[in-house]
Amino acid sequence: MLEVKVEPELEQLAVNTIRFLAVDAVEKAKSGHPGLPSGAADYAYVLWTKYLKFNPSVPSWQDRDRFVLSAGHGSMLLYALLHLSGYNLSMEQIKNFRQWGSITPGHPEHELAPGVESTTGPLGQGFANGVGMAIAAKMMAARFNRPGYPIIGHRVYAIVSDGDLMEGISHEAASLAGHLGLDNIIYIYDDNHISIEGDTELAYSDDVEDRFEGYGWHVQRINGHDRKAADEAIHAAVNEDRRPSLIIARTHIGYGAPHKQDTKDAHGEALGPEEVEAMKKNLGWPLEPTFLVPESVYELFSERRKLLEEAFHEWSVMFMHYREEYPQEARVWADMMGLKVPDNITDRLIGTVDMSKDAATRESSGVVMQEIAKCVPGFCGGSADLAPSTRTILEDYGHIEKDRFDGRNFHFGVREHAMGGICTGLALNGGLIPYAATFLIFSDYMRPTLRLASMQHVQVVYVYTHDSVFLGEDGPTHEPIEHLTSIRAIPGINIIRPADAAETAVAWAVAMKNHHGPTALALTRQKVPQIQRQDSQSALGLEKGAYVISDPDGQLDLILIASGSEVHVAVAAAGMLAENGLKARVVSFPSHELFEQQSREYKETILPPDINNRVVIEAASPMSWYRYAGPYGLIIGLDRFGASAPWKAIAKELGYTPEAVTQRVMEYIEQRRQEPKRPTIDGAPACE
Amino acid sequence: MLEVKVEPELEQLAVNTIRFLAVDAVEKAKSGHPGLPSGAADYAYVLWTKYLKFNPSVPSWQDRDRFVLSAGHGSMLLYALLHLSGYNLSMEQIKNFRQWGSITPGHPEHELAPGVESTTGPLGQGFANGVGMAIAAKMMAARFNRPGYPIIGHRVYAIVSDGDLMEGISHEAASLAGHLGLDNIIYIYDDNHISIEGDTELAYSDDVEDRFEGYGWHVQRINGHDRKAADEAIHAAVNEDRRPSLIIARTHIGYGAPHKQDTKDAHGEALGPEEVEAMKKNLGWPLEPTFLVPESVYELFSERRKLLEEAFHEWSVMFMHYREEYPQEARVWADMMGLKVPDNITDRLIGTVDMSKDAATRESSGVVMQEIAKCVPGFCGGSADLAPSTRTILEDYGHIEKDRFDGRNFHFGVREHAMGGICTGLALNGGLIPYAATFLIFSDYMRPTLRLASMQHVQVVYVYTHDSVFLGEDGPTHEPIEHLTSIRAIPGINIIRPADAAETAVAWAVAMKNHHGPTALALTRQKVPQIQRQDSQSALGLEKGAYVISDPDGQLDLILIASGSEVHVAVAAAGMLAENGLKARVVSFPSHELFEQQSREYKETILPPDINNRVVIEAASPMSWYRYAGPYGLIIGLDRFGASAPWKAIAKELGYTPEAVTQRVMEYIEQRRQEPKRPTIDGAPACE
Repeated sequence: MLEVKVEPELEQLAVNTIRFLAVDAVEKAKSGHPGLPSGAADYAYVLWTKYLKFNPSVPSWQDRDRFVLSAGHGSMLLYALLHLSGYNLSMEQIKNFRQWGSITPGHPEHELAPGVESTTGPLGQGFANGVGMAIAAKMMAARFNRPGYPIIGHRVYAIVSDGDLMEGISHEAASLAGHLGLDNIIYIYDDNHISIEGDTELAYSDDVEDRFEGYGWHVQRINGHDRKAADEAIHAAVNEDRRPSLIIARTHIGYGAPHKQDTKDAHGEALGPEEVEAMKKNLGWPLEPTFLVPESVYELFSERRKLLEEAFHEWSVMFMHYREEYPQEARVWADMMGLKVPDNITDRLIGTVDMSKDAATRESSGVVMQEIAKCVPGFCGGSADLAPSTRTILEDYGHIEKDRFDGRNFHFGVREHAMGGICTGLALNGGLIPYAATFLIFSDYMRPTLRLASMQHVQVVYVYTHDSVFLGEDGPTHEPIEHLTSIRAIPGINIIRPADAAETAVAWAVAMKNHHGPTALALTRQKVPQIQRQDSQSALGLEKGAYVISDPDGQLDLILIASGSEVHVAVAAAGMLAENGLKARVVSFPSHELFEQQSREYKETILPPDINNRVVIEAASPMSWYRYAGPYGLIIGLDRFGASAPWKAIAKELGYTPEAVTQRVMEYIEQRRQEPKRPTIDGAPACE
Repeated sequence: MLEVKVEPELEQLAVNTIRFLAVDAVEKAKSGHPGLPSGAADYAYVLWTKYLKFNPSVPSWQDRDRFVLSAGHGSMLLYALLHLSGYNLSMEQIKNFRQWGSITPGHPEHELAPGVESTTGPLGQGFANGVGMAIAAKMMAARFNRPGYPIIGHRVYAIVSDGDLMEGISHEAASLAGHLGLDNIIYIYDDNHISIEGDTELAYSDDVEDRFEGYGWHVQRINGHDRKAADEAIHAAVNEDRRPSLIIARTHIGYGAPHKQDTKDAHGEALGPEEVEAMKKNLGWPLEPTFLVPESVYELFSERRKLLEEAFHEWSVMFMHYREEYPQEARVWADMMGLKVPDNITDRLIGTVDMSKDAATRESSGVVMQEIAKCVPGFCGGSADLAPSTRTILEDYGHIEKDRFDGRNFHFGVREHAMGGICTGLALNGGLIPYAATFLIFSDYMRPTLRLASMQHVQVVYVYTHDSVFLGEDGPTHEPIEHLTSIRAIPGINIIRPADAAETAVAWAVAMKNHHGPTALALTRQKVPQIQRQDSQSALGLEKGAYVISDPDGQLDLILIASGSEVHVAVAAAGMLAENGLKARVVSFPSHELFEQQSREYKETILPPDINNRVVIEAASPMSWYRYAGPYGLIIGLDRFGASAPWKAIAKELGYTPEAVTQRVMEYIEQRRQEPKRPTIDGAPACE
């Protein structure tokens, strides 16, 4: 037991220290959320001083308990606890709460302050991240634990708010957590009855107990200010061995603030000097100095730190012996923690695909993924109930199930949003490189998780199939139009839309080598021909984002730029144009982000500045292409919703056959000849 | 009771007719979902022949029951029922299922076939739309019913699948429906135990009964193939007067298909000729002709149609008398149904705002909304627990509460996704013009509802405040970067980012006059100065998407283009540039969509083709601006996440002060002078 014995007075002193560090920091910043920290301080103190297992000196300890503040707006609670616990988060930083350049921003950001396990604030996200971390712990334990060597045995604790529980993502994640029986999850619901608009009862009357029991959770109710009750409840949750635990802790927001406790005024703004003074008097706290931490409180936490470091030491010794006794497992462990990928992965993946016959890029992707699974032990993932369509099952490996965590495939259910948040959590655990699969259209259901994954630089691969109107009969409700643009617009995500099997293999290799952020792959439902290349290696051009597929002899009349399933259309059109005496270069342009990482020289070899005749062919919103089409270009894009019909009918009706494209290009070139200075972007004249 | 007495044999014949119309249509299309229609046919028959109130000749009858097929993939079930019931949906259309130009697409699309109440397919959406329709019914009843005149008394029925119930949006909407006690909701959960990946138990083990009771729903369980049980359950649900009802109907997917019933193979693809033949033999159905509808079945439905038309006639007579007795109410009713907005609304709204002092555009919006509420009786809405921040409470009106539906304000709770779907449902009801408010960042949580609202051409206004990094201390988790671009990329949505109070008033007027699609408003958290204009009317330029704020005398050296809170920065920068001898036009560019609706002539008066020096200032992703910046332009945008700090610090650090902008423009102009042909888009050289 990692518990220090503490006198009640000192305990109370410590709890109030947490409260007033938060209150003073918010007051100084004149911005923030004092209510949650002061309401949650009691049970949070119990959790952090009696249960939570970590090592402030080694924040990355793999067997540490994870603590997620899903109610990220209560960030000062976490910063106070990190500071007191001995993490490298100085009082200076607490005084710089919410200021430029501090590691104590308004909402906790992973990679800034040590001990912040995930970036939270957008409600519900932390709830789902924690479920991913809990699954990861079960997976690592199943893979690496050996008799006498419980390498992984940690838990995931979180504080969740009414807002977290109202958000759909928390329902999805809770349902899956219950389904998988994640008994290593212990979430405390800070039930303070107050939301921004007032009493939660204005909008919220769930019987949370019924609801979570319906999800298969173990639910307890306590008075959140009764530390003994909190201790007993957490203890019971720790001993629960079949179900995830939810502890409903009734608390009072802004606890101790005489006029603002239990009101929304305590939620999201500074209490104001008078109320702070009244609160300090009320709780018997000195008015001065602010940011007071009594020495005895520092001592209390450093006592606990000693226990934690002993625990860490014992674990390290155990792991040392483990390495000796299980060198093979230890090697795999090291490879996984290093997110190691074979140096020759690109060749290996190219080697797996069949370039002799037409194939949907989702099919080629499915083949490639089997090889990745073989050479990357941390590769795992699943789809939101679309595996047969997304082709994302790792055939030689089992499925993650209740009591069965040695597999590498997930059934996420029809829960795209939770899938996204869970994959972020799997990646945050370390050792795992997860993928999340669904149709491109449904990336909208999980968008908040994409930007947070990018912000946290985690390696997650989004496998988005059925990537255009050419998915056909399912119709406009399932046909993406704006999605390529809207993902390209998110900072830090690479999105790649490969043209055929070879490009699909290279795209996966690029995704596997990109350890510093997420990658999204856009793949076709329909079969596409294999691009005929001068040399088989040319698909490596994908690594540069855009490259030349074919060049005519002599002076170029125009450049055809295309991505994904429109590349073979461009190739065919180039042939037809040649018959009409027009020399067209064909550029495959699978990734804007990769292209933008190239030198200006490289870019200009692909898109020479003196070639103004440019035609972009992508069956999607043209918005992201103006940059490359140039002022005299033509973008054959879609600024409308799709249609329900067999895909070849759609291609014909919307003008994406080689014949239709050739026709439009001929008209465009004719227009350019007549009015060389008349801009024609997007068919309609642009303003340049 | 709108029920026809039918012999059991005929009833069975009718049920199998529905089954095989679906099976034959999917077979002919070689694509679609035969499983749900054949599994749901029994209870759907009961609902459509004994309970559902509608008039095929007048699909828009305001007091009709609404039927939502949230499990939109079962579209052939709906098409079969519409055809048999006498809607204008011919057998020809059923034979053209999923073909180009038919009104029977893969998933039901509102506005195509009559009787399709909402566009469904993306799971969970219909569930939320129905909740909106049910609230709308309560609101209209509260406003217009009078003693002896139950003008509105209809219900909302839906068929929902396991997929719908797994999606977070359904949890959010169910929670709110229970909170509001929407006893006019009767949803049937088609519990067929099969999802695309296999048995639902692979990923789903909710105790749906517990869960929905936790939400405050009335839950019943039946055998979905026992029509008597279905009849009794629907009857009990109709009589339930406190809670929404969920009927869990255990069904067998692909009912009657000997080898595919209860398997995922019956879910999403044609059964194949052999299985169809076996199924027809198994259920005693003639193999030929396909698409068979026995005359007696047509007669059965036309008998029911007679009853329905009598009911409609009675209602019409009642409404005629109502008009006489309550002319005032009848006028309001007519105005609401016509979505009438005063002709002078623009002037009225401009008249409400104070142009004499700095104000956040969210504040100005809050003022304008009070006036809209006065002159547009159907204007209603709310926020996802952010009303005090989004400034969206209609002060002279009450809140929608359980048993209290005469208000016009909603507490949606922290449920952005359900809020979006519910507002679509409110608009689909007719008579109401709803708004949904949250921070721009959280538009990501409700994105699927934006594109579906646009696809359905409903008038919903999204009020998105805190629209840039200048929201400040809350930090990057709350600061939008890609959101303006990603909403601009959705076909059919107008997004407007006004610069000050006057533009905010005009933006709202434009939104209120746009009855054929949604409008999104992007509003500031921070105070902005009022733009000094030549004439006070010039803000009307917003209606054209972009217009000139100020022009220097003489030949232009450059154009400064800005939106929202960056416009006053551009104005100030133009002044500083003038002191440096540079003549800059300032263009306020609040809406790309409105600008694209203008003539080429207008566009070129704003952005003259011969002015290549253009600087775009928008603190967001530059992606959508390349089109207007031109090849030699400079875009002062953000391709990074934000930061947590007071907003003025952020403006300084990220270069959005007039001084910083002026400095960058000077450098840019200098570079242009040195290298007039050297492109400089986005600071970095582009490929033109």
